[in-house]
Amino acid sequence: MTATDSYEPTALTVPTRSRDRARYDHETVHSILDEAYICHLGFIRDGAPVVLPTLFARVGESLYMHGSTGSRPLLAAGRTDPGLPVCVTVTLVDGLVLARSAFHHSLNYRSVVVHGTAHQVTDEAECRTALAAMVDAVAPGRAADSRPPTARELAATSVIRVDLAEVSAKIRSGPVNDGAEDLDLPHWAGVVPVAPVYGTPVPAADLTPGIAVPDYLTAL
Amino acid sequence: MTATDSYEPTALTVPTRSRDRARYDHETVHSILDEAYICHLGFIRDGAPVVLPTLFARVGESLYMHGSTGSRPLLAAGRTDPGLPVCVTVTLVDGLVLARSAFHHSLNYRSVVVHGTAHQVTDEAECRTALAAMVDAVAPGRAADSRPPTARELAATSVIRVDLAEVSAKIRSGPVNDGAEDLDLPHWAGVVPVAPVYGTPVPAADLTPGIAVPDYLTAL
Repeated sequence: MTATDSYEPTALTVPTRSRDRARYDHETVHSILDEAYICHLGFIRDGAPVVLPTLFARVGESLYMHGSTGSRPLLAAGRTDPGLPVCVTVTLVDGLVLARSAFHHSLNYRSVVVHGTAHQVTDEAECRTALAAMVDAVAPGRAADSRPPTARELAATSVIRVDLAEVSAKIRSGPVNDGAEDLDLPHWAGVVPVAPVYGTPVPAADLTPGIAVPDYLTAL
Repeated sequence: MTATDSYEPTALTVPTRSRDRARYDHETVHSILDEAYICHLGFIRDGAPVVLPTLFARVGESLYMHGSTGSRPLLAAGRTDPGLPVCVTVTLVDGLVLARSAFHHSLNYRSVVVHGTAHQVTDEAECRTALAAMVDAVAPGRAADSRPPTARELAATSVIRVDLAEVSAKIRSGPVNDGAEDLDLPHWAGVVPVAPVYGTPVPAADLTPGIAVPDYLTAL
């Protein structure tokens, strides 16, 4: 990957408005995907849209998600040839933008929207890589510090892959954007930063005494 | 509303697995919706699923979202009779669940999935109520402390409504759930709490001197 690699904009990924907020370069898209671990997976079931929150991880130019072999979207991806059309959306909120006018209120955010097709992963090595990446997406370093899946656990897990091709990021950052006529209104205006914060790890009640909280968790 | 009011479970809202995590009572569903301000709005465009992150607010038994009159989903809701089929999903992450086995890794979360139809709101009073609720969803108390929309701003804004009828919540909470055979493995196990945290408000560069940060923002 070079800094100039970009996803090709398409009719689906060029917004009808706020085009200045759109980004297509791999570096921006990957950085947003890699900071998140929850996506919202959209697909069509019986003619109606369905959106489910689910864990995901990026490996190279693919996103992976998983679920029980009994779950409906994953069954559909396995049943359908050539795969299940999906939209995968990832959103990080960075700030509340409080303008003097209600109209100019906004959020600072970074989002990625992926249009593509979900395919069931059948290769065992690829499944294992994807599942380890999902554990590491939640806590980097955790996959190496947990018991890998058994053959029975692998058999009970469906992994789906969505390749990154039709992709865009959208970013809103920076200060409020009030109109000149509103600048003297008596309302506070500015940005309130927002970020996820991780609390003190709570050990399992039956944790073997003497096992300390690992460094990769205190680093969160 | 009484504590026993519930949404009727349907084929769309009863999960195929982890049924013990599903909730249908108004109180649980409303509390999740009211704590959030971002939803993921799913709909079908040209036969393909689309999922967009957007601000929302609940007013009674309806969700409201807004956008420019030039935005595609809102135009579609206006064009389509009787409305645009949507799925609105709201997700709050409460913790990282780190089991000894990769297989039992999970997240503590609360989510709501709403299946319904988006209708364009044409009544001006309803539009104003919805827009004020969206400002208050971001920072409770802010709507009264900002300039309301002008007629021109209202004309530039599409508001859509989705009524709460086919609705379910899903909650995972509590400790790790390792199998008995894994309890002696040498890996730390437990839950890392996660919550959004609001930083120190950053005033606009051109804020009129003497306007203090309002109490409803320091309360965040």
